[in-house]
Amino acid sequence: MSDPLPADHATRRALIVGTGLIGGSLGSGLRRRGWHVTGRDADADRAKRAVEVGAVDEIGEGLDADLVVIATPVAAAPAVASAILAEPGRPDHMVVTDVSGVKVPVVDAVRHPRFIGGHPMAGSEQSGIDGADPDLFVGATWVLTPTVDTDPGAFALLSDIITELGADVIALSAADHDRLVAVVSHVPHLVAATLMNAASEGAKADGALLRLAAGGFRDMTRIAAGQPSIWPDICADNADAIVTGLDRLLDDLANLRDKVAAGDSAALLDLLQRASTARRELPASGTRPDRLAEIRVPVFDRQGVLAEFTSLAGDLGINIYDLVIAHSAEGPRGVLTLVVGADEAEELRRAIEGRGHICTVTELS
Amino acid sequence: MSDPLPADHATRRALIVGTGLIGGSLGSGLRRRGWHVTGRDADADRAKRAVEVGAVDEIGEGLDADLVVIATPVAAAPAVASAILAEPGRPDHMVVTDVSGVKVPVVDAVRHPRFIGGHPMAGSEQSGIDGADPDLFVGATWVLTPTVDTDPGAFALLSDIITELGADVIALSAADHDRLVAVVSHVPHLVAATLMNAASEGAKADGALLRLAAGGFRDMTRIAAGQPSIWPDICADNADAIVTGLDRLLDDLANLRDKVAAGDSAALLDLLQRASTARRELPASGTRPDRLAEIRVPVFDRQGVLAEFTSLAGDLGINIYDLVIAHSAEGPRGVLTLVVGADEAEELRRAIEGRGHICTVTELS
Repeated sequence: MSDPLPADHATRRALIVGTGLIGGSLGSGLRRRGWHVTGRDADADRAKRAVEVGAVDEIGEGLDADLVVIATPVAAAPAVASAILAEPGRPDHMVVTDVSGVKVPVVDAVRHPRFIGGHPMAGSEQSGIDGADPDLFVGATWVLTPTVDTDPGAFALLSDIITELGADVIALSAADHDRLVAVVSHVPHLVAATLMNAASEGAKADGALLRLAAGGFRDMTRIAAGQPSIWPDICADNADAIVTGLDRLLDDLANLRDKVAAGDSAALLDLLQRASTARRELPASGTRPDRLAEIRVPVFDRQGVLAEFTSLAGDLGINIYDLVIAHSAEGPRGVLTLVVGADEAEELRRAIEGRGHICTVTELS
Repeated sequence: MSDPLPADHATRRALIVGTGLIGGSLGSGLRRRGWHVTGRDADADRAKRAVEVGAVDEIGEGLDADLVVIATPVAAAPAVASAILAEPGRPDHMVVTDVSGVKVPVVDAVRHPRFIGGHPMAGSEQSGIDGADPDLFVGATWVLTPTVDTDPGAFALLSDIITELGADVIALSAADHDRLVAVVSHVPHLVAATLMNAASEGAKADGALLRLAAGGFRDMTRIAAGQPSIWPDICADNADAIVTGLDRLLDDLANLRDKVAAGDSAALLDLLQRASTARRELPASGTRPDRLAEIRVPVFDRQGVLAEFTSLAGDLGINIYDLVIAHSAEGPRGVLTLVVGADEAEELRRAIEGRGHICTVTELS
C-alpha cells in the first residue's frame, strides 16, 4: 500500500552489515524478491563466502541503499548504525534497522527518525552464513521498536519489506520487547543449556544416561546447540529482565519440588493440565488470518503518533499486517490506517477509542 | 538368532492390555510384522476403537499369546501382570512385559522369571489410540530391566521382538532406569510445564508475550502438551529421583542467576559452550552401528547371569542388538553371546574381564 521509494528507483537496493546466519538469510530473501543486495562484514572471508553462496550480490558500502540492516553482534550495532546514518550522500528515504536480540541498548544509543530497532524472532541451531536460508523468516514474528522520534514513512517502508519476506510485524516499545523476550527466549535458552550440562555431567558417571534421551529431551535442549558466543552479550544487555525471569522460575520450580516431595497429586495434575492446555492453545506462528480488517484513525500528523498506535496493538498481542499514514495537504492532520486480523480489529478499536480517538473498522474483502 | 517359540507355532500371537497410544502403536507394529494381536482395555470403547483403526485383530483374553504387553496406566500394571502370569492354561514360553515409565514399583511387585519390565523411550504429544503409529518405536531406545530371577530365554525372545520393531534394547536395573529417566525425562517434562505456565500467566498481563514465542520456546514446551493424567503417578512412583533432580537443577539455575546478576561473561560463555558441544554430540537415536561384534562369554547357566551381563552393558551405555544363551548338554555351563556395536565391544570386553570372566570378541561381517 505504501511506497515511499522514489518512482525512478527501479531496483530496490539493500546494504547488509554482518553476513552471518541472519544477515545472509535476509540477503538471500531480499535477492529472491528482486532486490540488489550489497554486503559487508568485519570478517572479509565471511563477506566473500556470502557472495559465493548467493546471499549478497557484491561486497561494498552500498551508498545508494534504500534499506540498511545491521546484523552485526549487538555490541557493534549502535556504532555501525550511527555511522551510516551520519554518512553524507546516502538517500533521504533510507531506512536503517538492526536485528539484535536486546533492543533497549541499541534503541537508546541510536536516536534517529529513520532508525527503527528490529528483532526477527527466527533463528536456528545452525549458525553462520552456510546456514543462511531465504525462507528463515516465513511465518516468524518480527518485532519493531518504534519510538516517539520514528518517522511513520520509514516504519511503513520497513514494515512492508518485512511483510514481503513472509514475517508478521509486531510493534513494541524496546523496554517491553526486552522484558518479554527474557521470558520466552533468554530464560528458556539458559534453562536448555543447564539441562544439557546436567545430563552431560551425569553421563560421566552413568554411560547409559544419554542413551535414554528421547524426543522430549532432544526438543528441550535443541536450542542449546546454538552459537554460544552471542549469549554473554545478551545476558549483560538484558541482565535485569533475565534475573527477574530466573528468580520467577526458581520460585516456581521450588514450589513444584515441594509438591512432588509431599506427594500432592492434585496440585501436580492441575499444574500439568494448565500447561497442556496452554501449550495446545499456543498461537501457531505463521498463521496469517484469512480475514483482515482496516482501522482508520484521524490523527495529528506528528512525531510519536506512530509509536503510540503500533505499541498499543503490540501490547494487545495484535500483529500489524500493513500500515500507512496519509498526510493531509491542508494542515497538520492525517489518517493512520492499520491492517490487522479481522477477529482482532474490534479489540484494537476499543483500545484506540479508550485513548480518546475516533476510528472506523472496515473488513477487507 | 534365538527362537524359543514352538516349531509348530505358525503365527506368533500377542495380547496387549491397554490399547492407548503405546499399546495401539505396538499392536499395529506387531500386526505389520505378521503377528496376530488380541487387545483388551478397561474402557470397552477404546478397545473397540483399537479394532476399528487396525491396531489389534480382535478383543479378547489372548489365552494362547506368546507375548503379553501390559500397557495400562502404571498403577494397574503390577496386578494385571501378576494375574496373567498366574492364569492356568497359558503357554510355558509366554513372556510378559510392561511399558510403564517408572520401573521399580512394577518390577518389585511382579517377581517372575518370565516377566521383564520394559520402557520404550518413545512418546508423542499425541495421546490415545488415534495417535497410534506402527513406526513409533523405530530408532527409539527401549529399556528392559531384567533381574536375577529373569529367564534368559524370555529376555532373548523379548529382545528379539523389540529389535524387530526397530528399537534398540538397553538393559538396566530398574533402580538405575528410574534414576536416569528422572534426569532426562521426568525433570525436563516438569520444567517444560513450568515454563509454559509462567509464559501463559505472563500473557495475561502482556498480550504480545506468546506472539514472541519462537521455535526455541515451542521446542522446549512441546512435551508439556502431552497427556497430563499420567504424571501424578510418575511423580509419586519416582518421587525421590525427581526431587533429587529438581534440587540439582535449582542449584544449577541459582548459580546461573548469580552469574548473570554479576555480569560474569566468562563463566556464562563457558557454560553455554559446554552445553552447545554436548548437545551437538548427543548420540542420535536410531543410529544402529554399521559394524557389529559378538562377545562370547562362558558362564554358569544359572539365574542371574543374564542380568549381570546385560546390566553391565547398560551401565556403560552400550545397546545390545542380540543376545543368546547356549546351554551345555553336559552340565551347568553355557555360553552367553552378546551382539553389540563393534566400536563398543572392546570396552565391554574389558568390563567383563574386570569381573573375572574370560571372553572372546569377533567382529561380524
